[in-house]
Amino acid sequence: LRIGEGWDTHALVVGRPLVLGGVTIPHSHGLLGHSDADALLHAITDALLGAAGLGDIGRHFPDTDPAFAGADSAVLLQEAARRVRAAGWLPVNVDSTIVAQAPKMAPHIAAMRERIAALLGLAEAAVNVKAKTAEKMGPVGEGRSIETRAVCLLVRASGATSS
Amino acid sequence: LRIGEGWDTHALVVGRPLVLGGVTIPHSHGLLGHSDADALLHAITDALLGAAGLGDIGRHFPDTDPAFAGADSAVLLQEAARRVRAAGWLPVNVDSTIVAQAPKMAPHIAAMRERIAALLGLAEAAVNVKAKTAEKMGPVGEGRSIETRAVCLLVRASGATSS
Amino acid sequence: LRIGEGWDTHALVVGRPLVLGGVTIPHSHGLLGHSDADALLHAITDALLGAAGLGDIGRHFPDTDPAFAGADSAVLLQEAARRVRAAGWLPVNVDSTIVAQAPKMAPHIAAMRERIAALLGLAEAAVNVKAKTAEKMGPVGEGRSIETRAVCLLVRASGATSS
Ligand SMILES: [Mg+2]
Ligand SMILES: [Mg+2]
Ligand SMILES: [Mg+2]
Repeated sequence: LRIGEGWDTHALVVGRPLVLGGVTIPHSHGLLGHSDADALLHAITDALLGAAGLGDIGRHFPDTDPAFAGADSAVLLQEAARRVRAAGWLPVNVDSTIVAQAPKMAPHIAAMRERIAALLGLAEAAVNVKAKTAEKMGPVGEGRSIETRAVCLLVRASGATSS
Repeated sequence: LRIGEGWDTHALVVGRPLVLGGVTIPHSHGLLGHSDADALLHAITDALLGAAGLGDIGRHFPDTDPAFAGADSAVLLQEAARRVRAAGWLPVNVDSTIVAQAPKMAPHIAAMRERIAALLGLAEAAVNVKAKTAEKMGPVGEGRSIETRAVCLLVRASGATSS
Repeated sequence: LRIGEGWDTHALVVGRPLVLGGVTIPHSHGLLGHSDADALLHAITDALLGAAGLGDIGRHFPDTDPAFAGADSAVLLQEAARRVRAAGWLPVNVDSTIVAQAPKMAPHIAAMRERIAALLGLAEAAVNVKAKTAEKMGPVGEGRSIETRAVCLLVRASGATSS
């Protein structure tokens, strides 16, 4: 067994779509970044890579690499999960939190969960997405950014060498 | 096995009691919220629900519901733990951190731990509460809020269907 | 099995060395603290103590104790790991994140990982260090501080009494 954690933040700006958990959410602002800036998928990607001892998203998908400009973070998560499996690990479950002052995330949580479960080949019961505000304080609370957090549990794939 | 994580923040204001980990702490300020605003119990509640794949505290106990105005977060945590057990999971351990610039938490940690263990039906050795300051920076460091963090591990209840 | 989490922050100031993950990193600023202020080792220390139900770094190594002025956090981590083992637990893996706007952490990650693994008696594959910026927002993003996060998994030492 292995556990991993991930954290991410991106700035909220006008003129970008808001993509979180692989779902596009109608909103006045979107997240700024080299890729689609899906902070939730980035935190989950980091938790998976971290648990497997494979470094971080920046090492696997450098944001200085033009190949990843505007990248679909869902594709990056799938590729990270493939590398985690190639290292002999299978995801057991993922839990995560979006911290955002707006918009309301509740209407979109079910779609995010379904999307993340499909990307990871997990049952929906093994994927969880929570949402909080920052109570109007700090960069998130002032509507300048969104933060995300994730943890995951991995188990050795049967047939993989024990370590 | 399943793992979950939780995070919470509430603003510190005058004229409210400071309740953390189910313990009332003498202080000039208290946490603002719809319930008693016990940020530590909220983070632990979210970690339990998250690990079990049951969503989050806001879905189970909406802060727009008058039934939860001034609610005792200890009652909400117990009810969340009941729902987690009903879904076939038992808590193994909980670890958590309070980030607060003031007051000193150390004198109250033992009481919080005892209270949380009793609420969850866990041995005290399986519940841990840590405390940090934010080194006088950001909303927490400026004394405007308190943040909390928690993780938990769940195991399948014997007799429950494997999943 | 037990899981634990840790979080830390220290202010970045001129005139101090920057020590993270037991590695001294060339930089214009360093972290301010009673010890060497190695925020990454502090978060990992807290995750280990928290998983074992042993409280926190402040209880074991009070920053009001002159014995720990300028202390090498690597020595404190080793002593914490000794106390965790004495309580009957062995570390399985550690995952962690440094959140810093500057300097670039990537060139130093391998050395940190090697150092932490050696301090904990773990294989390097069981230790992971990730790095992120705070996207220029908040105390970390404005270059005023560095934040760190860690999780760890413990297993009962063979021969230890089950609990
Ligand atoms: Mg990102
Ligand atoms: Mg709350
Ligand atoms: Mg520290």
